[in-house]
Amino acid sequence: MKTLDTAQTAELLLQKDDFVILTHRNPDGDTLGSAFALLRALRSIGKRAFVSCSDEIPEKFSYLYADLKNEPFEPQFVVAVDVADVKLLGSPNAELYGERVDLCIDHHMSHRAYAEYLHLQDVAATAQIFCDLIPAMGAQIDEKTASCIYTGLSTDTGCFRYSNTAPSTLRAAADMIECGADHEFINRVMFETESLSYLALQKAALESLETYFDGKCAVITLTQAMFCESGSDESACDGIASIPRRIEGAQAGVTIRERKDGTYKVSLRTHAPIDAAEICKKLGGGGHARAAGCEFDGPLADGKARLLKEIESELKK
Amino acid sequence: MKTLDTAQTAELLLQKDDFVILTHRNPDGDTLGSAFALLRALRSIGKRAFVSCSDEIPEKFSYLYADLKNEPFEPQFVVAVDVADVKLLGSPNAELYGERVDLCIDHHMSHRAYAEYLHLQDVAATAQIFCDLIPAMGAQIDEKTASCIYTGLSTDTGCFRYSNTAPSTLRAAADMIECGADHEFINRVMFETESLSYLALQKAALESLETYFDGKCAVITLTQAMFCESGSDESACDGIASIPRRIEGAQAGVTIRERKDGTYKVSLRTHAPIDAAEICKKLGGGGHARAAGCEFDGPLADGKARLLKEIESELKK
Repeated sequence: MKTLDTAQTAELLLQKDDFVILTHRNPDGDTLGSAFALLRALRSIGKRAFVSCSDEIPEKFSYLYADLKNEPFEPQFVVAVDVADVKLLGSPNAELYGERVDLCIDHHMSHRAYAEYLHLQDVAATAQIFCDLIPAMGAQIDEKTASCIYTGLSTDTGCFRYSNTAPSTLRAAADMIECGADHEFINRVMFETESLSYLALQKAALESLETYFDGKCAVITLTQAMFCESGSDESACDGIASIPRRIEGAQAGVTIRERKDGTYKVSLRTHAPIDAAEICKKLGGGGHARAAGCEFDGPLADGKARLLKEIESELKK
Repeated sequence: MKTLDTAQTAELLLQKDDFVILTHRNPDGDTLGSAFALLRALRSIGKRAFVSCSDEIPEKFSYLYADLKNEPFEPQFVVAVDVADVKLLGSPNAELYGERVDLCIDHHMSHRAYAEYLHLQDVAATAQIFCDLIPAMGAQIDEKTASCIYTGLSTDTGCFRYSNTAPSTLRAAADMIECGADHEFINRVMFETESLSYLALQKAALESLETYFDGKCAVITLTQAMFCESGSDESACDGIASIPRRIEGAQAGVTIRERKDGTYKVSLRTHAPIDAAEICKKLGGGGHARAAGCEFDGPLADGKARLLKEIESELKK
């Protein structure tokens, strides 16, 4: 594995042709924004390229590529963007391309090298890398490309809210708006659109809210009945899961979701120094220090009691 | 009334001393951030100043001034910041100072002139004006001042999410982070912390949700009973007011709040091209193109009907 700087990465891309650009599974705004930004830049200088993702791309991202044809061909050069680990290519791309990734462009400092060439930068979003890389390739950042890059910048930072937002992130976003990124539309789709069914689920979630340990732990429980009654589905859970940790005084925010098979999925978000991964590990799960998960079989009361016991002992540390 | 540019405003401030800095009633992050940024800059160059607000300052803003003494004295020069109309000084400041405001620094394009001197700039937040004004006064933007300015920038743009966010807003925020603004803390307090009473109010708000005109207009009504039952107060309304516009398909989001005196305050948020200021102007209010306000006396049904009529005719345009 050889690491490349911006100029070397640009040079390598200019030498090659017939690219497949791979995203990670469960694609988000950063991996998709990065992929379609690179595709647009490569095509603008006469190269052939297509984007491939193991999972279906959620409808809300369709503006990234609605004007493009994205037909596969036999690729000569394999680029992965925002993919921190070869496993995260998902199936079938991990099997198809996992052993022959030529170049990876990424921003995860936890990156586990798997490509022949690696361009890794410690920035808030992989998309930010393309602000310099595309001009280094001698290509233009046109309006659509700017929208792709802006999407990565805003979605990976909670619209510039999270602690990973650096001055350079904000300046990159400013540059992309000047290049024509439709930030108003993008922010509206990504952050300012909620369905009535989501709001109904949120109302039910708030009704289920309980607090423990002097308010240091807040718990929301989502039942299958709530999904049915609200008309919402499990894709809404990401938004709900952020609610309990936001409660004033809460150090640990728990969302317990009943699955269709009667088992329960737990999402745990914490504030420093409470270690969410440590707690979830005790129940056979895992994750990051501030966001982790685990699961348990019914009955609900038993699993919840075990979880609360682990949270209590972590709060006492 | 005489309009001043940045250099002239700085010069005027340098000539004067013993300032009272006035915010608007129901103070928000922009009026308070602007006021305490100006207070810090004036004091740093040896001037006397205090901030005065007709209403109590919500506890969550205490970091803006926790390290300061803010004792009143007989002021010689009256500055209003982010106050678009003299009425918005509220009581008692409108009576105390309304006829003798020397300088107003504001960003509302709907500004109704009342001060002797006006510095008006079409920027996302009044706080942004201080990024240039403070250096023009020969003062430094220290860490605390940067946090004040950042607070105004982030709160008036929904943390850089709303359409009023311009490249210059993002660059100003980047500059303030580099000057030492504690953006992580500020964003957590402003955008990632909700009280249990706020969540109870939100639940009641969601129960009151109605939609009109094929879902193009969503209305939330907050009654005094809801404030009492939830234990929440009117400072919670800012968060609630952003909900109805977020609903999928809504072009106009209305929040009607019953005041203690039985009158009603309307907050209107819209998506382009619906002009919120135009609609509110018809009911004697005003504001920005995407966020405006007005008020009406009871009964609720009459005021609401008049408002909905204006919204309907704007939607039909």
